[in-house]
Amino acid sequence: MSMVVVGSVAYDGIETPHGKVDRILGGACTYIALSASYFTQPKIVAVVGDDFAQEDYDFLASRNIDLAGLECVPGKSFFWAGVYSNDMNDRETLATELNVFADFDPKLPAAYKDCPYLLLGNIQPALQRSVKDQMSGLKWVGGDTMNYWIADFRQELLKTISTWDFLLINDGEARMLSGENNLKKAAEKILAMGPHTLVIKRGEYGAILWRKDGHFMVPGYLLERVFDPTGAGDCFAGGFMGYLAGQGVDARSGNIDHNELRKAVIYGSVMGSFCCEKFGVDRFRTLTRAEVDERFEEFRAFTSF
Amino acid sequence: MSMVVVGSVAYDGIETPHGKVDRILGGACTYIALSASYFTQPKIVAVVGDDFAQEDYDFLASRNIDLAGLECVPGKSFFWAGVYSNDMNDRETLATELNVFADFDPKLPAAYKDCPYLLLGNIQPALQRSVKDQMSGLKWVGGDTMNYWIADFRQELLKTISTWDFLLINDGEARMLSGENNLKKAAEKILAMGPHTLVIKRGEYGAILWRKDGHFMVPGYLLERVFDPTGAGDCFAGGFMGYLAGQGVDARSGNIDHNELRKAVIYGSVMGSFCCEKFGVDRFRTLTRAEVDERFEEFRAFTSF
Repeated sequence: MSMVVVGSVAYDGIETPHGKVDRILGGACTYIALSASYFTQPKIVAVVGDDFAQEDYDFLASRNIDLAGLECVPGKSFFWAGVYSNDMNDRETLATELNVFADFDPKLPAAYKDCPYLLLGNIQPALQRSVKDQMSGLKWVGGDTMNYWIADFRQELLKTISTWDFLLINDGEARMLSGENNLKKAAEKILAMGPHTLVIKRGEYGAILWRKDGHFMVPGYLLERVFDPTGAGDCFAGGFMGYLAGQGVDARSGNIDHNELRKAVIYGSVMGSFCCEKFGVDRFRTLTRAEVDERFEEFRAFTSF
Repeated sequence: MSMVVVGSVAYDGIETPHGKVDRILGGACTYIALSASYFTQPKIVAVVGDDFAQEDYDFLASRNIDLAGLECVPGKSFFWAGVYSNDMNDRETLATELNVFADFDPKLPAAYKDCPYLLLGNIQPALQRSVKDQMSGLKWVGGDTMNYWIADFRQELLKTISTWDFLLINDGEARMLSGENNLKKAAEKILAMGPHTLVIKRGEYGAILWRKDGHFMVPGYLLERVFDPTGAGDCFAGGFMGYLAGQGVDARSGNIDHNELRKAVIYGSVMGSFCCEKFGVDRFRTLTRAEVDERFEEFRAFTSF
């Protein structure tokens, strides 16, 4: 089944130890949708300016991404620029120009409103809520957030995630949201905030899936070279949710198949790892589903005993 | 089958955010032997001063550790003191008093010399070599080292590990030894130095087993509270090698059971995690083999999909 994805579609300027690009296709919604497109049909809700290039529309459409909810308004698209440290573990933001994204007021096309899967990328929590309120018959809804919303929009954020099925954040954000340094205690506190499922991303160290009845851990895939980590977390989210949507997993049935959740975490990890292999979204210009499934089996091979 | 363990038996002063002890039983050889004692009979080769307490002899003996090679000489035992940072990821050494350990010249009791398993704790590479030279009929030999030997005794160290079956070090040491920041490349370079098996410990993030034909990754066990991480890496080594010795795995047969190696990494991880639950070696005063096996099954439960 298809899934709705809300977030930013943007242009990025990126510098890593392996190279530099001034302006390439980026944005959380873009990465999520590209990643999810290997498992389901993503339906984008986002806004771009009239500078958004035809070749970028064409690329997204070529991956069977529904662009009916990609609004184009006069002005410039969201632009972000950053530079990574030598070991890629830190990055410094050089520019954040919201442009048309500053007035983003997501409106869903009628054909999106009964879609059973909704992934809310990292945007203002009130906007995330307004998108959810426009939909009905949801089987899985959840998303991402970031330190800025946790620190300065805490009550708004808590209200928003209280009705989600899952929250997908990194370890630093989990510690910040819960006020607990220990991840096990942090997870317990976050599960008490509403979501029955929590995924904590740990960058190169993998991810942890938490539910009240237990957890699942996967190590990070070892790459010979991390070319550009931009978007890896969003690709994780897209693979995770895309797989669940593709399989038709229903969180509201009261009977979630735990092994499907675990496989979704693996597919998330697989997609995050591919994302790092080239600059920006470039890996998705050639990546095939067969390669995705091959890497999934690699995960099984290097983790089973 | 039994295994010989060489290294330090010492007293430690430890301060963590959870408490402070001035002088408790410690040392790499101690931790390794206690951990391995759940799987095999460890035979210690070490030196202590005449201040070494009867209750500490008794404790080691109570775990069926062979103390024939624990030499006692006039003077004080090796003493180390350190203080951990609040998040336990860093520690500062406050004191290193070699005392009788400064003149340690390991001599093996006759009954040790045909033992098929040898684990060389972190001591001077030339001493590690002299111990190995005293033995015959070895089926598995390997050990640990540290940044000091890698930086200042590099040629000596390379000569020593060139004849080992396995090397067991942490990620920082692997990067330093190989000169490669990327762990995959680092592992390839180290495997070309002699050992056919490499285990890279990553602290709270788990461990990786490397061989020329592939690798195995395990995430770190999530503890609610890390009471004291002192000795966790040595306990990993003891669990890893102790399990192989207990199972009689033969590296020289040319036909190593890879699943036994993977299980050895899990048992190493299990023992390292228990070590952190109390100060110093205290967890091993009560730990049972049944608890060890229960946690082994927990690892299977939270990693399989």
